[in-house]
Amino acid sequence: MSDYPTLAQIKDARKTLGSLIIETPAQQWRDPRLLERIGDNTEVFVKLELFQLTGTFKLRGALNVMLNLEQKQLERGSHCRQCRQSCHCHRLCRKGPWDLGKSSHDQNANPLRMQLARELGAEIILADNPHDAFALVKKIKQEEGRTFIHPFEGPLTLQGTGTAGLEFAQQVPELDAMILPIGGGGLCGGFAAALKQIWPGIKIYGVEPEGASSMYQSFQQGKPVTLDHIDTIADSLAPPKAEPYTFSVCRRFVDEIVLVDDDQLKAAMRNLFHELKLAVEPAGAATTAGLLGPLKEKIRGQRVGIIVCGANIAIDDFNSLVS
Amino acid sequence: MSDYPTLAQIKDARKTLGSLIIETPAQQWRDPRLLERIGDNTEVFVKLELFQLTGTFKLRGALNVMLNLEQKQLERGSHCRQCRQSCHCHRLCRKGPWDLGKSSHDQNANPLRMQLARELGAEIILADNPHDAFALVKKIKQEEGRTFIHPFEGPLTLQGTGTAGLEFAQQVPELDAMILPIGGGGLCGGFAAALKQIWPGIKIYGVEPEGASSMYQSFQQGKPVTLDHIDTIADSLAPPKAEPYTFSVCRRFVDEIVLVDDDQLKAAMRNLFHELKLAVEPAGAATTAGLLGPLKEKIRGQRVGIIVCGANIAIDDFNSLVS
Repeated sequence: MSDYPTLAQIKDARKTLGSLIIETPAQQWRDPRLLERIGDNTEVFVKLELFQLTGTFKLRGALNVMLNLEQKQLERGSHCRQCRQSCHCHRLCRKGPWDLGKSSHDQNANPLRMQLARELGAEIILADNPHDAFALVKKIKQEEGRTFIHPFEGPLTLQGTGTAGLEFAQQVPELDAMILPIGGGGLCGGFAAALKQIWPGIKIYGVEPEGASSMYQSFQQGKPVTLDHIDTIADSLAPPKAEPYTFSVCRRFVDEIVLVDDDQLKAAMRNLFHELKLAVEPAGAATTAGLLGPLKEKIRGQRVGIIVCGANIAIDDFNSLVS
Repeated sequence: MSDYPTLAQIKDARKTLGSLIIETPAQQWRDPRLLERIGDNTEVFVKLELFQLTGTFKLRGALNVMLNLEQKQLERGSHCRQCRQSCHCHRLCRKGPWDLGKSSHDQNANPLRMQLARELGAEIILADNPHDAFALVKKIKQEEGRTFIHPFEGPLTLQGTGTAGLEFAQQVPELDAMILPIGGGGLCGGFAAALKQIWPGIKIYGVEPEGASSMYQSFQQGKPVTLDHIDTIADSLAPPKAEPYTFSVCRRFVDEIVLVDDDQLKAAMRNLFHELKLAVEPAGAATTAGLLGPLKEKIRGQRVGIIVCGANIAIDDFNSLVS
């Protein structure tokens, strides 16, 4: 078995996902205000993954895991049938650390995201912190015989997220560089694997919040690290630690990771609002913050892709961040 | 000469516009919250025209007028050459009642829209009200030998806006119904003409603000009317009067016009923010307000298209409208 998502596996994942996900649009960002900043001869193409069902790419990875479970374990009953049913209504069965982790991350769960998950049929149990949340999920898994779907780790998850890269490569001309957000690395690893196998000459840049730099530090130390402390407004990009499979895939396909701070994320949210008419949460602005900040000179004059993903934010929160 | 934009003319306009406009994406709106409101078996496809350069469809009509001027009058010099240059930099030459009209509409011009126009090289002269603005533009035209580009009236303008309809018909499956916003009717007339010639069975619904219902009243009276009074938050859909050509094209291709009030527009802005992650000005939410309000029962169970267009709004204004 390959130790990274191959193109064949990613194409299989796309077939498996079928019409449970949508092909999100891609768009060239040609606003003159952007081009003044990064140069007239720079071309920026945007994968609008925020239009994915649920507002995030995560569906691609999670459903790919669940649909594979279903096929292999259908006759074993209970949670599998539940999976089938849930998939078909876009209701994920109790998802484990997604919401548990999110909710407990800062002791003050993002209320909108919990509400949306509940509306889709999820049951949410709060833990005191992300580490406890992962432990709680293990306990639930054992006691109730449930299946644990990790928020970013694992081959099937990355094969699923790779489908976004596969799509993008069919939507835009060959790119010199791609900028991807990194939280756990699930999106970045899968997307980068797809693009680099299609266009081997492409440079892949990861963007991580300064206050939650688990992958950046893992790259520096050569092994997945656990963070003591997390402090960023980009709560969707702030898992407590890097995991081995995702780390190894990112290390293989990502050329460089850069960091952005909260002010850069807020400024990028304003740019996306004014120039692309998009209302995103801080994590959704990470690639734009990288493009206009630490990567600005590196990508000048190139044909570069970014992904905008993550738009589960309440209007008041949006306003208080961008005003 | 045909008294409406023919498909052949609209296709010619698309060639004329070339890469000065972009093909904006189309997207199915599959959020479960939407489907709960309008029925699981209703399919809604959205033309994301707010991603057009400048944030609005108006470029399609205005450039089509200017590029045709240019070809016919190139040897006559002065303003024509200016047009060519302006087109190529996406700088419209002094545009007349667009900004004059907009700016004077409520004695309190939309500052963001004026700023954006100035950044693109426009010179803006304020008038006291929309009627005075049109008069002032006539005076400038005569005194300075400039060409007047009407904001919505005229065959070339509607052939230009028709290109958005042509595109949409290639992007989505055959529709039962299309919902279009109406201000002056320039977008609605061209778009409706394209779709109804491609799919003769389609129903076309227009949506107009209750407080600026010039086309609705014109339909009732059988002739273009002038409004005494305008009162709506959708300032992009509020011209002082209907014009004869646009009126006749809308009358030919639009089956019914419905009205929405300011509260319905604000609610639709919130829906677009939460469910499609889009930050639009009130005019950009008109078709959504129609879909979820007066047209809700009529389109239930159908395959229906809407267009989202108009996103030139400041963050503070957005917040004060949707909070």
